[in-house]
Amino acid sequence: MAKSQREISVSEFFAKNRHLLGFDNPSKALLTTIKEAVDNSLDACEEAGILPEIVVEIQQLEEDRYRVAVEDNGPGIVRAQIPNIFGKLLYGSKFHSRRQSRGQQGIGISAAGLYGQMTCGKGPRIWSKTKRGKMHAFEMQMDLTKNKALITKDEEHKDWHRKQGTRFEIDIEATYKRGLRSVDDYIKQTAVSNPHAQIRYKAPTMEEHRFYERAVKQVPERADEIKPHPYGVELGELMKMLRNTNSRWLSGFLQEEFCRVGPKVAKEIIKEAGLGERSYPTRIAREEANKLYRAIQKTKISSPPTNCLSPIGEERILEGLRKECDADFYSVSTRPPSVYRGNPFQIEVGIAWGKPGGDQLDVDEKGRIKKSKRKRTTDTEDLLGNADDTIRVLRFANRVPLLFQLSGCGFTKSVMQTSWKNYGLSQSKNALPVGSAVILIHMASVWVPFTSEAKEAIAPYPEILKEVKLALQEAGRKLGVHIRKGKKVASEFQKRSYIEKYLPHVGIGLQEILDISIEEREEVVEALRETMETTRKI
Amino acid sequence: MAKSQREISVSEFFAKNRHLLGFDNPSKALLTTIKEAVDNSLDACEEAGILPEIVVEIQQLEEDRYRVAVEDNGPGIVRAQIPNIFGKLLYGSKFHSRRQSRGQQGIGISAAGLYGQMTCGKGPRIWSKTKRGKMHAFEMQMDLTKNKALITKDEEHKDWHRKQGTRFEIDIEATYKRGLRSVDDYIKQTAVSNPHAQIRYKAPTMEEHRFYERAVKQVPERADEIKPHPYGVELGELMKMLRNTNSRWLSGFLQEEFCRVGPKVAKEIIKEAGLGERSYPTRIAREEANKLYRAIQKTKISSPPTNCLSPIGEERILEGLRKECDADFYSVSTRPPSVYRGNPFQIEVGIAWGKPGGDQLDVDEKGRIKKSKRKRTTDTEDLLGNADDTIRVLRFANRVPLLFQLSGCGFTKSVMQTSWKNYGLSQSKNALPVGSAVILIHMASVWVPFTSEAKEAIAPYPEILKEVKLALQEAGRKLGVHIRKGKKVASEFQKRSYIEKYLPHVGIGLQEILDISIEEREEVVEALRETMETTRKI
Repeated sequence: MAKSQREISVSEFFAKNRHLLGFDNPSKALLTTIKEAVDNSLDACEEAGILPEIVVEIQQLEEDRYRVAVEDNGPGIVRAQIPNIFGKLLYGSKFHSRRQSRGQQGIGISAAGLYGQMTCGKGPRIWSKTKRGKMHAFEMQMDLTKNKALITKDEEHKDWHRKQGTRFEIDIEATYKRGLRSVDDYIKQTAVSNPHAQIRYKAPTMEEHRFYERAVKQVPERADEIKPHPYGVELGELMKMLRNTNSRWLSGFLQEEFCRVGPKVAKEIIKEAGLGERSYPTRIAREEANKLYRAIQKTKISSPPTNCLSPIGEERILEGLRKECDADFYSVSTRPPSVYRGNPFQIEVGIAWGKPGGDQLDVDEKGRIKKSKRKRTTDTEDLLGNADDTIRVLRFANRVPLLFQLSGCGFTKSVMQTSWKNYGLSQSKNALPVGSAVILIHMASVWVPFTSEAKEAIAPYPEILKEVKLALQEAGRKLGVHIRKGKKVASEFQKRSYIEKYLPHVGIGLQEILDISIEEREEVVEALRETMETTRKI
Repeated sequence: MAKSQREISVSEFFAKNRHLLGFDNPSKALLTTIKEAVDNSLDACEEAGILPEIVVEIQQLEEDRYRVAVEDNGPGIVRAQIPNIFGKLLYGSKFHSRRQSRGQQGIGISAAGLYGQMTCGKGPRIWSKTKRGKMHAFEMQMDLTKNKALITKDEEHKDWHRKQGTRFEIDIEATYKRGLRSVDDYIKQTAVSNPHAQIRYKAPTMEEHRFYERAVKQVPERADEIKPHPYGVELGELMKMLRNTNSRWLSGFLQEEFCRVGPKVAKEIIKEAGLGERSYPTRIAREEANKLYRAIQKTKISSPPTNCLSPIGEERILEGLRKECDADFYSVSTRPPSVYRGNPFQIEVGIAWGKPGGDQLDVDEKGRIKKSKRKRTTDTEDLLGNADDTIRVLRFANRVPLLFQLSGCGFTKSVMQTSWKNYGLSQSKNALPVGSAVILIHMASVWVPFTSEAKEAIAPYPEILKEVKLALQEAGRKLGVHIRKGKKVASEFQKRSYIEKYLPHVGIGLQEILDISIEEREEVVEALRETMETTRKI
């Protein structure tokens, strides 16, 4: 029995459990592969301060096999890192840093390569060029037992069609579908949450690339990295930090290793713990560390800084929504940053509302009401939905659309717990509201608590649910005012059309009673019409 | 940027994402810790053919800290393996073998130790003795960065209070709660699904150990290990197997590495692939391997053998249910083994039904109906529930109770999709049926497809859902017959009580009409009563 005991490599583990990573079935596998590659491309561009240009291409090879390619204009990857980044699970720069990014696990893109290799027998192919370096073309096979990439092709080229950037290509077993939760859907939502990105997309059914132009021409500000907040650190982590610190005094340790700890707070913590300010951190044993840990919980420490967060921003959310849904009304709300388990986060909410295919009522400068058919594109219909359907919730975490596990997501829970009847939408108990509306929810955080490695849904931390609810209420109130006003406009329009209809008859009546001429009758009717237009203005 | 790229150890990954492993909150952490340790103990005993004696102890140390100890009479662990088994994530013997066992990931028990160390600063403590070896007492600290255990104490003792066995102890941040999804609940359900195990359990609130005696005195037959089935192997895996095989001929390779492939099937596959029977497996390139893969899918191959499965068995399910619920009726159903993705599995279902606290109707040998209060214990009430509540579903995978993620579980889906109205229970659309009943579902498989590493719910593979539904229908039909009969008995009892009530009045009437004596009247009434008892038998 003892003999058969052995190490399990993380590649083997996830190859067998690949549904944990979002490779449950062929259609989801296609989406997950593209999502992981696009996440990486966008992260790379933004970190380097480059306006992203992303190309996504899907090509059908056989009935059940597709070739996926994702290309970016990012900074490129130095040669030595390519095999690790694309061929090793649990490798990367984002896991250990407390900075907002799309990727955070160091698994995604290698898992996509692994899935391709498992189902189609070929590992990933990479082309990458840094600004001053040459272009490197790699082909690799992943060694599952060692969680390592074996390079099967390694070429250097002087020229490439890009000055810099990276292209990732993999053959996978997949199914291409359209509609909800499809790659088409994902690309569209990515355009909404990343209005600074330009995306060119070609699915197997398309004759040419679909082009998503950027709505803003500014890279989002680069989010800062922060130190851990004392409240978010557990005893075991604290002990590890004490062992590994370069600080020689306990007071210095607290100030250097944590955010929001100055000399005063450090003094308070140490006093509460009954320790000495000049204690050697590396000599602190478990019992003393435990006292320190308890003291931290008892000391009042201000919330972590929030310059580590890069929200989408109200204007960009509006632009994104406008670009993708042709609604009657838009409302946005941003919450101040908050904290869960020591991690700063911020919630943004946007609502788009309108009657799809219905009439649009507008009031012109003269106060006249105009009724016009709303222009619509095929794209819009997808997003806005019918007036009898439950509204659509677009969920985003660090600008990445979440397409699966809607019912298992903390965001959905918050939408259901909000009383939408107050804001003019109908809603059953414990259900999503009904109406042709889209609710967009975005969480920006240095660490997003996903319910699985597939990063499909947000874990329902109470602090997060509360913030989402407050943001929804704020945006909802604005929507409520608009819907009530809209109902007033509609009923006013109705009344005016009745009056207009009967004005000529009133004229004829007056003519008969007062025995006036036709011209006088016309004059009176015109006067009445003008009176109505000026008095029944809205 | 390139500099900050580095490896992420699997310990670091799961420490940060510990909610993926079932350590979401303090009360669930307590349960998960105990569950992982008990799983290991039961697996170890059964593999060695030992009737398990398990001791589970929870002791409160501080308000939010508990000490958990799990001890077994298993074969013990050899000294060299202790640090790896308890101090290294992704290590073990079960992941690579195709054999039914509770553990399958090589993560659980080390994750519990890791959680303890993170929250309370101390690593796990192990005592283990093999039959002929000495007892070894270990204390360890886990090095997260290296995913390795550092031994801090390593003692050898000649004697121990057990001839052989293992004790695992860890201090963790936790909350002890009672009721549904508690440790109490888990222990009780474990006793139901493991009637061959004896469990002694002591929670902080108990004055002495609670004793779950075994109901059967036979260790379940040891499940065999099987080779992979050709249908369950993907192209990438096939290529890896071809590279690593010792077989020198393709035909031999197919027959030796897979189950259910004999010379005839091997020939068929190779012919379909257009390859030679004597091809060198290690020289087969991707294109040929692909042809082989496609050929396998097209060839008819019989289902994998099922001696690798160790179901609980109808009798033991009945005994388990009887021991834990004092119901009126029990029904069990076992499906023949089936296959999903090349993995054999088998479904068993048990139903216990009764009106809790209500009257029990029994018919004695003479055909008399007796009405008696059912005896009940506090234990029973937990399991059976009220007649107005939705029924309780006890879910088990390889004899391990699943307590969380009820609504996200494939089993629950199957229960909801079964029409319980046909079987005498009321049920709303897409909901669990209502009644004081317990439904037990067990899946035995060489690989259980869990929806997360926390092993809380079964992924909804269509093949599994179908088998569960068929088993439920079979057990349900028996229940339906009983309930209809029960309703008949109850209405009969009602009628009889009416007749009995009026028999004396009938006697008085007859006395007046026929002018008979009091004795004659009594005689007639007695004769009528006897007639009723013999004719209105059920």
